[in-house]
Amino acid sequence: MTVSKSAADPARDSTRSARAARKEPAEGQTDSSALQMAELSELLGYSLKRAQLKIFEDFLRCVAPLQLTPAQFSVLLLLDKNPGRNQTEIANTLGILRPNFVAMLDGLESRDLCARMRSTNDRRSHILMLTDKGRAVLARAKKLVAAKHEARLNELLGSANRAALLAMLATIAREF
Amino acid sequence: MTVSKSAADPARDSTRSARAARKEPAEGQTDSSALQMAELSELLGYSLKRAQLKIFEDFLRCVAPLQLTPAQFSVLLLLDKNPGRNQTEIANTLGILRPNFVAMLDGLESRDLCARMRSTNDRRSHILMLTDKGRAVLARAKKLVAAKHEARLNELLGSANRAALLAMLATIAREF
Repeated sequence: MTVSKSAADPARDSTRSARAARKEPAEGQTDSSALQMAELSELLGYSLKRAQLKIFEDFLRCVAPLQLTPAQFSVLLLLDKNPGRNQTEIANTLGILRPNFVAMLDGLESRDLCARMRSTNDRRSHILMLTDKGRAVLARAKKLVAAKHEARLNELLGSANRAALLAMLATIAREF
Repeated sequence: MTVSKSAADPARDSTRSARAARKEPAEGQTDSSALQMAELSELLGYSLKRAQLKIFEDFLRCVAPLQLTPAQFSVLLLLDKNPGRNQTEIANTLGILRPNFVAMLDGLESRDLCARMRSTNDRRSHILMLTDKGRAVLARAKKLVAAKHEARLNELLGSANRAALLAMLATIAREF
């Protein structure tokens, strides 16, 4: 798998010429107002967090007409593919803490996007299902995410780099 | 820049043999209890968040003797390289919201790791400095992070992949 220079090189041509036009210093050069980032830009955790915040902001913008957060979107996706699973299974699979998940479900249920039912096998557990409205909202959200959000990311990174990035993130999530 | 197969391939040899020994199904195969992840594993935002949570957990474990969060560590690093900058500059550079940053500084100051002083130029602004204790704690934290946290990440990904990952994350943070 190859990571092309265009996405990996910090000084992309377009950025470089935009900077030159505005007479801004390149990154790493001293600027009286810019702070020295020290080892921060070499820390994977810090870089992941900054990239993740940028991606979440863009996601929220792209899906704004539907008022869905990334976490809510992931719950709807999972319920759609796994109807009739219980609350604990969904929360554990997504790595969401129980109190946060209960609050999120309250929100989704009040908007009639999903429904909780007592399990007939185990009265203490709740089975989760998408409603028809939930399925319709999910379908619209998937279109917005694909056409606006993921398409722009693909354009920025290139599809080979995007695949390499996903593979490395999966390795970290699974094995670190 | 090349991403070697070892880190990018979802089925690494060690994982594959461990799975075979436990007779577990490989990812993607059906398991009566595992949930279908649908498009989730293809969403960059979701994958970034899962990887980031894993890395933050490991960071907290590695720096546990010093009781520092990743965000506190990044503040100490930045103060060390940029003494005498004001609160707003540090918060903006790290992308931390003002109320959260004030609460974090209260915590660091109560532990005598940093100090706030009124600016002589602008009485409304606060200048931030590391204390001697803050510098000592930062030095110990840097050693723990390098020896335990970053070294394990390097081992998992390989240094070329790690560099490619950092470069792509920087591209997203800067240009997306």
